[in-house]
Amino acid sequence: MRDIIGNIEIRAIEELFINIHPIQPGGRLTPEAMKALISYGDGYSTCDWCRKPFRLDKIRRPPIEEFHVKLAEFLGMDQVRVVPGARRGFQAVVSSMIEKGDSVIVSSLAHYTEFLAVEAAKGVVKEVPLNENHVITGENTAKKIEEVKKETGVFPKLIMMDHFDYMLGNEHDVRGVARVAKDYGIPFMYNGAYTIGVMPVNGREIGADFLVGSGHKSFASPAPSGILATTEEWSDRVFRTTQMVGDVTKRKFGIKEVEMMGCTLMGATLIAMMASFSTIKERVKHWDKEVEKINYFVKEFLKIQGNKVMSELPRKHTLTKLDTRGSFDKIAQTHKRRGFFFSDELKKRKIVGEFVGATKTWKMNTYGLTWNQIRYLAQALQDIARKYNIDVA
Amino acid sequence: MRDIIGNIEIRAIEELFINIHPIQPGGRLTPEAMKALISYGDGYSTCDWCRKPFRLDKIRRPPIEEFHVKLAEFLGMDQVRVVPGARRGFQAVVSSMIEKGDSVIVSSLAHYTEFLAVEAAKGVVKEVPLNENHVITGENTAKKIEEVKKETGVFPKLIMMDHFDYMLGNEHDVRGVARVAKDYGIPFMYNGAYTIGVMPVNGREIGADFLVGSGHKSFASPAPSGILATTEEWSDRVFRTTQMVGDVTKRKFGIKEVEMMGCTLMGATLIAMMASFSTIKERVKHWDKEVEKINYFVKEFLKIQGNKVMSELPRKHTLTKLDTRGSFDKIAQTHKRRGFFFSDELKKRKIVGEFVGATKTWKMNTYGLTWNQIRYLAQALQDIARKYNIDVA
Repeated sequence: MRDIIGNIEIRAIEELFINIHPIQPGGRLTPEAMKALISYGDGYSTCDWCRKPFRLDKIRRPPIEEFHVKLAEFLGMDQVRVVPGARRGFQAVVSSMIEKGDSVIVSSLAHYTEFLAVEAAKGVVKEVPLNENHVITGENTAKKIEEVKKETGVFPKLIMMDHFDYMLGNEHDVRGVARVAKDYGIPFMYNGAYTIGVMPVNGREIGADFLVGSGHKSFASPAPSGILATTEEWSDRVFRTTQMVGDVTKRKFGIKEVEMMGCTLMGATLIAMMASFSTIKERVKHWDKEVEKINYFVKEFLKIQGNKVMSELPRKHTLTKLDTRGSFDKIAQTHKRRGFFFSDELKKRKIVGEFVGATKTWKMNTYGLTWNQIRYLAQALQDIARKYNIDVA
Repeated sequence: MRDIIGNIEIRAIEELFINIHPIQPGGRLTPEAMKALISYGDGYSTCDWCRKPFRLDKIRRPPIEEFHVKLAEFLGMDQVRVVPGARRGFQAVVSSMIEKGDSVIVSSLAHYTEFLAVEAAKGVVKEVPLNENHVITGENTAKKIEEVKKETGVFPKLIMMDHFDYMLGNEHDVRGVARVAKDYGIPFMYNGAYTIGVMPVNGREIGADFLVGSGHKSFASPAPSGILATTEEWSDRVFRTTQMVGDVTKRKFGIKEVEMMGCTLMGATLIAMMASFSTIKERVKHWDKEVEKINYFVKEFLKIQGNKVMSELPRKHTLTKLDTRGSFDKIAQTHKRRGFFFSDELKKRKIVGEFVGATKTWKMNTYGLTWNQIRYLAQALQDIARKYNIDVA
């Protein structure tokens, strides 16, 4: 009987270790979110006081409606909905904006879920090439739009762009892209999976038609949770309500939104987002401190001979791709534990979240670490280097 | 700062009251699920040990892969995925099976999310009429298929049918519908939102091509969570992997499933489902006891003069629609609190979950109540009746 449950270990990584996992730190729960989970864990826990018009974002007790209003303000947008992950936000936008065969502009570093959203809607992705600094510019986006027009005879129907990409954590010129989008009259979706909830994001100021964020990636919330925000101009389209009528019963469900499939996060996930919101509003103001810490770390990391940083420098994001082919990977070549020697050494020092066994190129994220932890982390890497006779400057 | 969070009250309905809410009881967490939530609350908590091929259902630590295999066995199907709510299962099936303009057969008591799934895929719903007992039969389904063929020139592309509907909790002849579906060669999706997790369901035995279940409705899990299961025949279609290739980078993400948008429940929601699974496997064996209890309740309820039951009798499901127009609603007509008098009386007796203020027709669900609670509930309604001089037989 207890086959599955007997093998679910108690997860205490955040309690016992310094976690540098590339995608986990921004989704670590706040204490308030943890309390909310416990109180609202049961299935349809948000539905106790659901009244007309019977839609999640209209519920007043708990204050879900107010949260939606305040979240839209916080993001500089007019309308917001919560969704089961950023990917479901992409899906809703793409499905609303394109028809079969239409082209959608994405980054050459676009997350795979953008590909899937376009594929599900039977569209075609068209990637904007990176410039020499591995960054997407407005100029390259404009060029790509022209190419698509030339190649297919029609302009792309949507531009989706990641502010910071998932591979290098580089900042892409979303404002420049937004200007190009406006010039061409093509709607622009800003992918804020790595920004909304960790740094200030204002959709109006950026010039975005849609903002998408991730609860479990950057909003201190459980999975699956996410945010889809838009302007008055587009809200009737992406949040269009059902028009279908039952042919026998003549039933209509007029208030329900098609792309949302009605209600979205009917329980713990939403209440946890709401519970984290106060902390989120405060923590985005201190993003500069997070950037300071990753740049300190990178400086110390580069003192280890052979180390390189693949992400742009100086760092503008805590997600960073490192290259240790010239250092730790050389040790791995002859170590009996191969690449695992490095993970062993990190784990001994209570550091986890690197890709276990990887010593060539790997990603990490220092978001939310204290200065003491950052210094300890840098020191630990230098200690490991010295132990294996790698020079440290 | 604390505007939203200051207004999130601590939810203790399940601790302090007898909850007869129509959609909540099956999603009440098990103690194991609650513990899992606490341990795995952080965003991407399931991704600590994600390794090649980098897909949620392939993760071995915690035993997510094993859970998927065991869950498919439990449901008598070949392949299963978890999804953010049953509605996202409907969406995946419909989006995979139909093209713009295609017809989909649904029940005249179909849940609105089935309408939305068809609308999102640009299809058209065609409702099967109820028989005189408010039940969907295979015969009526066959008739409707013929009508659609006659009207549109082509057969419907999919049949979706709720085993028990959300309005009356009546049982519909899903086996008969499955046979008709097979006769016509039309794929059949079984909607088990009100069955999977509370009663035994075996897709092979029913003859279903797709099973969809709800975690937060019937699987003792937090929202949003759900189940989509299918046979080998259809799994390559509904779980098809991405074929898209980046035109500049030539990137492919071959293992990722289009309709799932890649991974689905990357944290607490999935681990809670897994933690509840042992209890689920056991509790479905005792569905007959649940049915016994609702029938006892209904018998006592009908002793109150003027009371009626709108659902079929004897009850085959704990979800039941009641008609108190001839009893409590008469009191409400002249009571200064109107219909709220009834909620006040229930609440005084520590009973909640009815639609507050409703005294005409309303739904309730006794799933999971103990015999003591059932007797107390029946007694409470009779006490309220007597207090307002309504005869009790």
